[in-house]
Amino acid sequence: MPAKGVCAMSGARFSKIYTGDLRVPMRGIRLSDGTEVSLYDTSGPYTDPAVETDVRRGLPHLREAWIAGRRAAGQPVTQVACARKGLITKEMEFVAVREGVTAEFVRQEVAAGRAIIPANVNHPESEPMIIGRNFLVKINANIGNSAVTSSIEEEVEKMTWATRWGADTIMDLSTGDDIHETREWIIRNSPVPVGTVPIYQALEKVKGRPEALSWEVYRDTLVEQCEQGVDYVTVHAGVRLAHVPLTTRRKTGIVSRGGSIMAAWCLAHRRESFLYEHFDEMCELLARYDVSYSLGDGLRPGSIADANDEAQFAELRTLGELAGIARAHDVQVMIEGPGHVPMHKIKENVDLQRELCDDAPFYTLGPLVTDIAPGYDHITSAIGAAMIGWYGTAMLCYVTPKEHLGLPDRNDVKTGVITYKIAAHAADLAKGHPQAQAWDDALSDARFEFRWEDQFDLSLDPVTARSYHDETLPAEPAKSAHFCSMCGPKFCSMRISHDLRALG
Amino acid sequence: MPAKGVCAMSGARFSKIYTGDLRVPMRGIRLSDGTEVSLYDTSGPYTDPAVETDVRRGLPHLREAWIAGRRAAGQPVTQVACARKGLITKEMEFVAVREGVTAEFVRQEVAAGRAIIPANVNHPESEPMIIGRNFLVKINANIGNSAVTSSIEEEVEKMTWATRWGADTIMDLSTGDDIHETREWIIRNSPVPVGTVPIYQALEKVKGRPEALSWEVYRDTLVEQCEQGVDYVTVHAGVRLAHVPLTTRRKTGIVSRGGSIMAAWCLAHRRESFLYEHFDEMCELLARYDVSYSLGDGLRPGSIADANDEAQFAELRTLGELAGIARAHDVQVMIEGPGHVPMHKIKENVDLQRELCDDAPFYTLGPLVTDIAPGYDHITSAIGAAMIGWYGTAMLCYVTPKEHLGLPDRNDVKTGVITYKIAAHAADLAKGHPQAQAWDDALSDARFEFRWEDQFDLSLDPVTARSYHDETLPAEPAKSAHFCSMCGPKFCSMRISHDLRALG
Repeated sequence: MPAKGVCAMSGARFSKIYTGDLRVPMRGIRLSDGTEVSLYDTSGPYTDPAVETDVRRGLPHLREAWIAGRRAAGQPVTQVACARKGLITKEMEFVAVREGVTAEFVRQEVAAGRAIIPANVNHPESEPMIIGRNFLVKINANIGNSAVTSSIEEEVEKMTWATRWGADTIMDLSTGDDIHETREWIIRNSPVPVGTVPIYQALEKVKGRPEALSWEVYRDTLVEQCEQGVDYVTVHAGVRLAHVPLTTRRKTGIVSRGGSIMAAWCLAHRRESFLYEHFDEMCELLARYDVSYSLGDGLRPGSIADANDEAQFAELRTLGELAGIARAHDVQVMIEGPGHVPMHKIKENVDLQRELCDDAPFYTLGPLVTDIAPGYDHITSAIGAAMIGWYGTAMLCYVTPKEHLGLPDRNDVKTGVITYKIAAHAADLAKGHPQAQAWDDALSDARFEFRWEDQFDLSLDPVTARSYHDETLPAEPAKSAHFCSMCGPKFCSMRISHDLRALG
Repeated sequence: MPAKGVCAMSGARFSKIYTGDLRVPMRGIRLSDGTEVSLYDTSGPYTDPAVETDVRRGLPHLREAWIAGRRAAGQPVTQVACARKGLITKEMEFVAVREGVTAEFVRQEVAAGRAIIPANVNHPESEPMIIGRNFLVKINANIGNSAVTSSIEEEVEKMTWATRWGADTIMDLSTGDDIHETREWIIRNSPVPVGTVPIYQALEKVKGRPEALSWEVYRDTLVEQCEQGVDYVTVHAGVRLAHVPLTTRRKTGIVSRGGSIMAAWCLAHRRESFLYEHFDEMCELLARYDVSYSLGDGLRPGSIADANDEAQFAELRTLGELAGIARAHDVQVMIEGPGHVPMHKIKENVDLQRELCDDAPFYTLGPLVTDIAPGYDHITSAIGAAMIGWYGTAMLCYVTPKEHLGLPDRNDVKTGVITYKIAAHAADLAKGHPQAQAWDDALSDARFEFRWEDQFDLSLDPVTARSYHDETLPAEPAKSAHFCSMCGPKFCSMRISHDLRALG
């Protein structure tokens, strides 16, 4: 049985705020001057002291009545189909409030395929969110057990923990036993969209032998996951038979699990990929649930040397073709991107993706800007993630310090999430998002006015900021002192700045 | 008495290599296939098991004979004066080997003022290094006690620790008691150039009252530090009286300690800065020792809101003017830069600095690309540092996780150094440096071939990489296993890639 969810943040200065009829959640921070700052909140009911959560019952069904209402009115199932008919769904209204834009703008972006709202009709527990270049940059946290280690309890707790710190979506990448049950616990308790890579479960069904896979096994797995409430699925349909030889001269071959499985299948059968060949049928299936595609980059580069090579871009061209087919079926679609890319080759990825995929949202893993720092790949990749977010990537898939080395634990998940919130927010700032700038301004005002408690509370990670400060100056009076231990009282430039203003 | 220096890295797979007559040190890594990779090494004699170091005696005087030889031959004192006369110094030969370029190229870059070799004639213990846009990007680590906490022993140990992990220079920013003695211990034991901000000590001499400062007190302090062997000094001569009012409407005023001290002095006396007025005299002094200028950005922005404002750029114009004067005196000079800058405003900083300062090396603090993550400012700043390094910044001043919160401890120093090595190396890669790419290639080859031990040894931080791996798969056989706990054996894409190559 999974553990009880994450505890709320300590201290009474935080509150859960709900805005409007749709009760859109925000995190309220009461500052010492009496004003309140409200921030985008991904943590779900877990951080509302008025809501009692129970992982055995799952979360309340926020979207149930909305979905039923659409069904009764004979409206289309998918958000993109509604948008194209000129309908503004409750989900669109909800994300409009979250993003500070009009619902009509949301509708237009979804209708154009420039943004998606991943929201399976069978995951009514989720709080709607939007992924698109004209909205706040989002982040995804991967969880899931591997065959080697970890349990269901741990994975559910990682999910609530990741959303607590700011994950906008969760991917359950479990590959061991109990895939179905792990996923059930996660979906029923997840306030954010849940993504999966169905081929992992399909492979378990054929005992781990890629060549034993078939469209039928895959389709059944997909139906199972759609029924269960998965919001988006990574599908490596761009790994075509003809692409596989392009990888043989690479330094690190194929580094995507799904990509390597599909390449193995194609080579074993000397046949075109069954995912590619059955793509239309897959679209029809996904459309029935409003499950979104995340078209996987199975041939992404796994090293700096392999960045932007022919294998990678050949697959991207196929993904562009498939995105067009998905849209024709009114299925929402985003495109996955690399990987390992040096800084000077990052922008080309975004430009090409935009052109080939007609502005479908881009969803990238990092990219890592160097290979030489295992143990610190949250940082090597945050550099690339911030840049690619600025260039227009809509969602960033986090990387934890354990990347390349082992399965992340709870601390790694937090570090990965906070690091990626930094990258996403830096991108929002560079794109000129007014909400983003206001947050920095609020924190810098608090810093300059020596309102230490406000500075901590406005931080991405108040717990760490406060504990670092208290290591050297723990006494309560230090919380209003006009200096810290970094420079000491005499050398505090900001204290001198205040004296200057009094003088000048 | 300071503690004994850092211990050598564990394991016999590392060796200290010396190249050529000048015995240029490199770090050799013996790979499991018998080949050896050699990497740039900043750690000094401490990592050579054949050298017995004793902090009470200090390091051997590597450069003593070179300096004496120049003096006997009547050659100029400063590297730039030699370069302009067409002389190739031993220091230039030494850095040429380190950088993999010709000594003549080094001479040309120094003569043009595009690069500096900070090397006080009174710090013969240092191993020469070069700072310039056409060389490997360097990093600086700040150490030094504040009035609130820490001891001399700790600071000397932080210095050896920081160079152990890759710091190319050290700045001693001590502000408490015993400034002179702390600095003496650090310089005598430092294999890398040591920088300081002399106004901190000058302020101590006048009991912490900025208005009591004078050119005479400052000059005496400068002489004391030049005599002692400081290699470069941050001088905030660009904070002119007319610039101070430009900061009053800022969100965070003046955030440079030295900048705020000089602004306070200017306002208190309603006079032009004594550093600006005595700049010629200062140049004559520095030229006698070959101490380099690091012209301080006393008006750097301390928040995203203040980036690239008139105060900052007015000071930069003055720094350009002063750089010209320094060069006329044959004094080596670099220019300090910000600070807090959102991604889209970073490039303008480099372009303007280059234009205004006639290509003098740029030396920046980060920049931090957002204000909202105290406790993680090594990361917010590494994003900006990597980008600004790519754009042409020659040296990056590290930021530790404790920035804005307290004085860094030993672990923070290591985290800051490793994070900045990542940023500098990512910049080298993006600039197309062949040595940089070779390192990534060696590590990625090891990764793809499941040579785990080689992968760890080639990492920026082998200790952390190994320990993360061993947390979940500690057994010795796992060190040659064709998978790790992240994906487990069945889902290892690289294992499947190998199978594919066998098949294909």
